[in-house]
Amino acid sequence: MNVEQAMALAIGRSESVRGTTSPNPPVGAVVLDAHGEVVGTGATRPPGGPHAEVVALAEAGERARGGTAVVTLEPCSHHGRTPPCTGALLAAGIARVRYAVPDPNPLAAGGGAVLRAAGVDAEEGPLGLEVARGPLRAWLHYARTGRPHVTWKYASTLDGRVAAADGTSRWISSAESRQEVHALRTKIDAIMVGGGTVRADDPRLTARGIPVERQPLRVVVGKGDLPPGARVLDAEAETVHLRTHDPDEVLAGLAGRGVVDVLLEGGPTLVGAFVAAGRIDRVLLYAAPKLLGAGPMALGESGVATITDAVGLVVEEVSMCGPDVRISAVPAVVSG
Amino acid sequence: MNVEQAMALAIGRSESVRGTTSPNPPVGAVVLDAHGEVVGTGATRPPGGPHAEVVALAEAGERARGGTAVVTLEPCSHHGRTPPCTGALLAAGIARVRYAVPDPNPLAAGGGAVLRAAGVDAEEGPLGLEVARGPLRAWLHYARTGRPHVTWKYASTLDGRVAAADGTSRWISSAESRQEVHALRTKIDAIMVGGGTVRADDPRLTARGIPVERQPLRVVVGKGDLPPGARVLDAEAETVHLRTHDPDEVLAGLAGRGVVDVLLEGGPTLVGAFVAAGRIDRVLLYAAPKLLGAGPMALGESGVATITDAVGLVVEEVSMCGPDVRISAVPAVVSG
Ligand SMILES: NC(=O)c1ccc[n+]([C@@H]2O[C@H](COP(=O)([O-])OP(=O)(O)OC[C@H]3O[C@@H](n4cnc5c(N)ncnc54)[C@H](OP(=O)(O)O)[C@@H]3O)[C@@H](O)[C@H]2O)c1
Ligand SMILES: NC(=O)c1ccc[n+]([C@@H]2O[C@H](COP(=O)([O-])OP(=O)(O)OC[C@H]3O[C@@H](n4cnc5c(N)ncnc54)[C@H](OP(=O)(O)O)[C@@H]3O)[C@@H](O)[C@H]2O)c1
Repeated sequence: MNVEQAMALAIGRSESVRGTTSPNPPVGAVVLDAHGEVVGTGATRPPGGPHAEVVALAEAGERARGGTAVVTLEPCSHHGRTPPCTGALLAAGIARVRYAVPDPNPLAAGGGAVLRAAGVDAEEGPLGLEVARGPLRAWLHYARTGRPHVTWKYASTLDGRVAAADGTSRWISSAESRQEVHALRTKIDAIMVGGGTVRADDPRLTARGIPVERQPLRVVVGKGDLPPGARVLDAEAETVHLRTHDPDEVLAGLAGRGVVDVLLEGGPTLVGAFVAAGRIDRVLLYAAPKLLGAGPMALGESGVATITDAVGLVVEEVSMCGPDVRISAVPAVVSG
Repeated sequence: MNVEQAMALAIGRSESVRGTTSPNPPVGAVVLDAHGEVVGTGATRPPGGPHAEVVALAEAGERARGGTAVVTLEPCSHHGRTPPCTGALLAAGIARVRYAVPDPNPLAAGGGAVLRAAGVDAEEGPLGLEVARGPLRAWLHYARTGRPHVTWKYASTLDGRVAAADGTSRWISSAESRQEVHALRTKIDAIMVGGGTVRADDPRLTARGIPVERQPLRVVVGKGDLPPGARVLDAEAETVHLRTHDPDEVLAGLAGRGVVDVLLEGGPTLVGAFVAAGRIDRVLLYAAPKLLGAGPMALGESGVATITDAVGLVVEEVSMCGPDVRISAVPAVVSG
């Protein structure tokens, strides 16, 4: 196996642990022996557990000596809750290291330099963009800004409605899209809605219909009380009620709980506040090929009065999800 | 050149005359000599002029003898304004005929049978779906239903707005999308809007910014008068004002004027009436990666009260047009 194939495998391993590692990054690692055989793979264990490189090296054992470590993120060189990975790589006798993305974290950075200084052939490797846009997207945003990454997910008809005139919305998007959203929920740290959505719809906000190892944190934003019997208050998952209207207070509160990757699922008032504050990092729209002609909209007041002030995005990916069109877009100007 | 390549060439010829042939179909034809060399190509001339086969045969002359005629539509066998194409093919000594789509018109059909009876190897050929969904789509719908084909075209933001809160909409879609719409206008027979759009926006409803041989017919629907100085009343193109609110009366009036292919460009009231009547045959959305959070919607009241009554479509094609996402969708249940 060559380095690029090994990196693709490492990406797969990292994807498999998304949603279980925050506030640490979901990293994947593959160890190749001197002949290019895969002798170990690993992914970040939950906080306090070993990093991906250490897991992969443990599996490889002596066969790592003189081999190559292929990692999605530059190995750390600092003592955190675990000893630095650079030390483990050196101790194992690894001759070559390739990492897809350099570590943006000033505390941890420099792992590549440490390895090179120790005589290891350590360099940035292939598939950096795939990793930066994929499994490490949220964590890189968090490392850069200190704020959790927010994906606004919604489903609308082609004419932009999120429910019919009578408020019914259950079958707006297809079974395929709904299933995909439940899978997405298992990969993120927290699901967030405004108090209005809880009062109007009493949603459960859990991942269902698929094997779920842990449920994401449920987050309700708003100053008012929640109905005592609200489903978000049940025992199916943990819930936090943040009594503020300020998106940055919300994000600071979530960062304080180790949340890195947030799925914002509405409603229009809360999303409007996040859009107005420039705190939407990705828009994920499931556009269902349906027309309604009446009914509520996904996005409420966002502080935009005229067309030249519209919030500009860039389409990153368009694909089909069953009969629906899935559009992923990111801000045209990235927030600092 | 083989038959499929010749058909692709014939499709290109037919596309080049779209918008100039109604109520006749825009057909393309290629004549190959006995060695498979292209010796003639043709496309339908404006009404009263020769059909595509006749144009291609004239170019081929004697070299057509023993050759193959490749045509996007089954050759006609009836005397209309011009003599039947079957006669011209037989007179030219064509040995083989391939047509992408059989003629659905009871008056004209049977050209294949006439040719076969005369000893010609005449059969349905390749790329039928491309032709039926492409250059002959509108005409086939018209031949089947007697009604012009209606494409509803609109541009909205990702949150479904067609203008900002203050009514400004000029830059919703990109320069690329706007240019494509102007090109589309040169390929259709008529552009239609409701009286409200004329009163609110005073649009010109012409194809601009590209070479234009003829402007489409401008159609305004509504019972009230138009402002005397309205631009749609200028000399740039012909305009018809249909004083009705009934989509079927509109379509009958247009069919009576030889219109086969209509671009419906709004506004929400008129489109709502067409949606409610089941008279939208294609939806063409340019979704701009922008967010507004306020402003008018593309589609008004369409008689849908609850989500299970939503008008169901099927996405036919999704592609990018510059930065915008272009979605083409057709009714899930085709109207009779
Ligand atoms: N189809 C969908 O995708 C979807 C998804 C979600 C919701 N919805 C629909 O959305 C509707 C609810 O709309 P909504 O706008 O009330 O929902 P919302 O945005 O979830 O909740 C609004 C509430 O959020 C709180 N809030 C947080 N930040 C705020 C801010 N900056 N400014 C003002 N309020 C803030 C306020 O609660 P306090 O008053 O407690 O302070 C406010 O009442 C329901 O009908 C639901 O069905 C649809
Ligand atoms: N951004 C875009 O893509 C776009 C495109 C077009 C329009 N618009 C916006 O749409 C707004 C105008 O909205 P609108 O709804 O007034 O426009 P509209 O649908 O173009 O016009 C409404 C008018 O159409 C007539 N009409 C035809 N059939 C009807 C029916 N079945 N029922 C009722 N009326 C019927 C009526 O005129 P009479 O009263 O004369 O009978 C009615 O007043 C403008 O602000 C314009 O900017 C936006």
